[in-house]
Amino acid sequence: MFSSIKRFLIGRPLKSNALGEQKLNKTKALAILSSDALSSVAYGPEQILIVLITVSAAAFWYSIPIAVGVLILLTALILSYRQIIFAYPHGGGAYVVSKENLGINPGLIAGGSLLVDYILTVAVSVSAGTDAITSAFPSLHAYNVGIAIVFVVFITILNLRGVTESASVLAYPVYLFVLALFILIGVGLYNIVTGEASPDLHTPIGTPIAGISLFILLRAFASGSSALTGVEAISNAIPNFKDPAPNNAAKTLAAMGALLALLFTGIVYLAYYYGITPRAEVTVVSQIAEETFGRNFMYFFVQGTTALILILAANTGYSAFPLLAVNLATDKFIPRMFTVRGDRLGYSNGIIILGLSSIVLIVAFKGHTEQLIPLYAVGVFIPFTLSQTGMMMKWIREKPKGWISKLIINSTGALISFTVTIVFFLTKFAQVWPVLVFLPIIIYVFHRNRNHYEAVGNQLRINASEPASPIEGNVIVIPVSGMTHVVENSLNYAKSLSAARIIAVHVAFEREDEKKFEEKWKQWQPDIRLVTLHSHYRSIIQPLTKFVDIVEHKASESNYRVTVVIPQFIPKKGWHNFLHNQSSFLIRAFLLHRRSVVVTTVPYHLKK
Amino acid sequence: MFSSIKRFLIGRPLKSNALGEQKLNKTKALAILSSDALSSVAYGPEQILIVLITVSAAAFWYSIPIAVGVLILLTALILSYRQIIFAYPHGGGAYVVSKENLGINPGLIAGGSLLVDYILTVAVSVSAGTDAITSAFPSLHAYNVGIAIVFVVFITILNLRGVTESASVLAYPVYLFVLALFILIGVGLYNIVTGEASPDLHTPIGTPIAGISLFILLRAFASGSSALTGVEAISNAIPNFKDPAPNNAAKTLAAMGALLALLFTGIVYLAYYYGITPRAEVTVVSQIAEETFGRNFMYFFVQGTTALILILAANTGYSAFPLLAVNLATDKFIPRMFTVRGDRLGYSNGIIILGLSSIVLIVAFKGHTEQLIPLYAVGVFIPFTLSQTGMMMKWIREKPKGWISKLIINSTGALISFTVTIVFFLTKFAQVWPVLVFLPIIIYVFHRNRNHYEAVGNQLRINASEPASPIEGNVIVIPVSGMTHVVENSLNYAKSLSAARIIAVHVAFEREDEKKFEEKWKQWQPDIRLVTLHSHYRSIIQPLTKFVDIVEHKASESNYRVTVVIPQFIPKKGWHNFLHNQSSFLIRAFLLHRRSVVVTTVPYHLKK
Repeated sequence: MFSSIKRFLIGRPLKSNALGEQKLNKTKALAILSSDALSSVAYGPEQILIVLITVSAAAFWYSIPIAVGVLILLTALILSYRQIIFAYPHGGGAYVVSKENLGINPGLIAGGSLLVDYILTVAVSVSAGTDAITSAFPSLHAYNVGIAIVFVVFITILNLRGVTESASVLAYPVYLFVLALFILIGVGLYNIVTGEASPDLHTPIGTPIAGISLFILLRAFASGSSALTGVEAISNAIPNFKDPAPNNAAKTLAAMGALLALLFTGIVYLAYYYGITPRAEVTVVSQIAEETFGRNFMYFFVQGTTALILILAANTGYSAFPLLAVNLATDKFIPRMFTVRGDRLGYSNGIIILGLSSIVLIVAFKGHTEQLIPLYAVGVFIPFTLSQTGMMMKWIREKPKGWISKLIINSTGALISFTVTIVFFLTKFAQVWPVLVFLPIIIYVFHRNRNHYEAVGNQLRINASEPASPIEGNVIVIPVSGMTHVVENSLNYAKSLSAARIIAVHVAFEREDEKKFEEKWKQWQPDIRLVTLHSHYRSIIQPLTKFVDIVEHKASESNYRVTVVIPQFIPKKGWHNFLHNQSSFLIRAFLLHRRSVVVTTVPYHLKK
Repeated sequence: MFSSIKRFLIGRPLKSNALGEQKLNKTKALAILSSDALSSVAYGPEQILIVLITVSAAAFWYSIPIAVGVLILLTALILSYRQIIFAYPHGGGAYVVSKENLGINPGLIAGGSLLVDYILTVAVSVSAGTDAITSAFPSLHAYNVGIAIVFVVFITILNLRGVTESASVLAYPVYLFVLALFILIGVGLYNIVTGEASPDLHTPIGTPIAGISLFILLRAFASGSSALTGVEAISNAIPNFKDPAPNNAAKTLAAMGALLALLFTGIVYLAYYYGITPRAEVTVVSQIAEETFGRNFMYFFVQGTTALILILAANTGYSAFPLLAVNLATDKFIPRMFTVRGDRLGYSNGIIILGLSSIVLIVAFKGHTEQLIPLYAVGVFIPFTLSQTGMMMKWIREKPKGWISKLIINSTGALISFTVTIVFFLTKFAQVWPVLVFLPIIIYVFHRNRNHYEAVGNQLRINASEPASPIEGNVIVIPVSGMTHVVENSLNYAKSLSAARIIAVHVAFEREDEKKFEEKWKQWQPDIRLVTLHSHYRSIIQPLTKFVDIVEHKASESNYRVTVVIPQFIPKKGWHNFLHNQSSFLIRAFLLHRRSVVVTTVPYHLKK
């Protein structure tokens, strides 16, 4: 039942050698890996205006120089990530780059913040997209959390089906969004050029504004650079590209950078020219669209594709999180299960954990995850800074041909990213401080996991000095509850293991039962020794483990091994288990985890 | 950790022979077993008035003759249950009486409805008590469900601690409630006699009322008899009494009947004399108290003890449910686990299931369980009718000395109970129909369980004809994941079981790994045969079970038994398990339930 539902949802299992077919071409990769970055255009420009309005609407002209700053940062990031792609063609992004060039702990800081960040990406973008939809249909507003969860489940299932399949489904909305914004910007500029839009709506650039300060400008810049979250996704996902992977990834990155720059500039400029003021109920993009088209079909086209891409931005997290988890798990910092490929060759454990964690976040914040945006942005810029610094170190150490220009590119990237990080901490500390709590905890856990894995590895390795203790013989203990076929079956099995001493143990609750049982036993199995134990507290496990302890103690003196053979009947149907107090499950779990005895279960299958 | 919390909450385990000390004397028994019946006084009279008000307030005088009817019913019930107590001194009440005298299915109808009814008792009475409290402190109203759950958990823990301990705690509120009502009735009557209360508030008895019908009167009578729910509790709980149990139980029953009759009559009479009209926000008892005392200390004393006893009425369910469950489980109609005594000698499984089920009901109905009251009342009167009819049959069949008078008593009881049941179905069908759906389902499940237990019993019984298949020898299959101490340990164990053929099986995901592994193995364990299996779909279990199937097929031809020896390392700390993909758990579960192979786990305990 369960497995056929699974088949239906995620498709039949794929053979391991089908891995090549699951790789992405550039068009699909652009759609799947840039939805996060491109969707930021829907809120990045607005973030700048929200900061500037605290001074006055006249200060809006500053959005133009701030946008130029963001574009410079974008260029620096794209150029430096291009270099990372070629230097680290196996992917891994900030974690690998920082770890190899700066050391383990900087690597873990980068990896840890990205891991958390992808969860935030999914939660934040799905909630934002759901908000966009329920704003259009207010009657759905009460079901925000439920709708967001349905979307997360849907995207999770798509990703469990495999990378290419999800790419095919997700490519359309991304390209439609890009198309919609291009039409919007094109028509907007045409209106400006033809003079249809009034030129009096905005303050000219350079107008002096009272009350503007460097702090405000930096804050606006930091807010605006939240539009750049997601540009690292491609460098993490190189293994998902078709060969030659690095070249294809670099081209996709360039295309994404160009699209992002065009859309961002266009939106900022139109917002400035139309003199648009951010409002709580209507987004800036929606205002521009209304200004440009009025409330016609194009307006709803822009709104609809925006909502869709916000939801799909979550998909970037789904591409990057599992790959990062594989890297961390290979290095033994997180559980090994993240390295296992599922039925459809995706790293399903990573995908499922990501989906579940973001659902937890959505539920915990009741869908109001916008409070998490600054946290999420700072969680991106910390690894940006670390990976750029790592690349600087690499060039300085290796000094390849043309290293000076490469160094300059990465140094610029590192410097700007670092500045943005600091600005975030200075201007939005109240929202950003949890990073300082969670990162140390995560890194501590990473190290503990690694230590554990290494300790286990050392203990298991066969060339360790201690030789295995010899086994001279076996003692078999069989707990018996009555004289039944189940017990008989186990006794016969024990007898067939020749050279073993067999002791049957019966736990009795009443003195009378004890004697009766012993007498009956003598008639039934005269050649097998029976020990009866009395239980004062109606527990079978306590007297039994005590007895096993004693037997084991004696046995170990002469290098004998103790095996507890548990007779167990297996009912025909699963629900029947509920009708039987299968003490055997408990006994087995208890003995295995506390004592070093071998536990053997002899099943007796019921026929009805 | 878990066990020390358990110790703290329910106390240290008691030895089985301490059972006698856990028995109840009459004073405690009255408190613990009659809280349900006595608490009905808080709402029973009100139920009568609620029906009469549908005609007119002038019809209130009919409450007096209706109360007389209820008193007659009460007397009949008390007398007949007294006879049941002596006839069935081992308890069991309606279930045992109906089963023995009317047959299995009537017994199951009685038992099934009581089982469900006790769950309803707990849910309904705790919700009602919580309502009473939050009516006094409206700011708590939003937390109704939470508070009710806390009360259920508290009562559950008390009962897990044991019967006597809970009796000691619960006796005070019950006696305080009785005291409060006696003072209320006493002062009220005094006021009437001294003429302080105006005699003009009520219509004289016998005033003709237009619109009154037999239907209305029967409906009012049925509603009023909901005050009699709980009178059967004592007859179910005879085993909890100190010796001589039947005598003590009979005396307690008589005392309860007398108290119930006095309180019920008093409240009905005062309500009639004061001309009190039922209101949604204020209960009838509360109106009487206000009329009698004004809003002084005594008023709050009456209100407080009423709230307490409503909550404690749940405790009657806790006394009766587990004992009834033991009876049903002994007869194999419900899972055997209900017959097991817990650490404190109570039937803890019954107590816990009762607590959980009523929490589910409270949550499902969001605390508004008053809709369940008619269901709950009819669920009491069905077993009342059946047990009285059963007693009639008994007297007719056995004809003991003085059987005629006994027969008359039980016949009266049966007739009135049957009438009340019919009246419930006629006048409140909309609320009562679920009984007709659930009872058949419950009885069907009862029979299925019994059939299953009997089928299992027949299959296990040793004198069945088929002889156990002989075991000529053993084949041991060891799944090996690598060349580690864990595997070495298991191999040594397998070797020590002489006369066994050993096959090591390795599942490889990559062709290259396969060859490498085979070569290494030859060097490491040249004398143990290794089979490598290739897994296309990255699953270990599938190829392994296939292989085991083949081995088993061959082995069974020559009466050999297959044992799968699973090497398993046990980490030092529980949380470490999360870091390892312990396929061994899955393999074991899968093999045990699908195939008839023996599964042996050889633990290797890690030291750090």
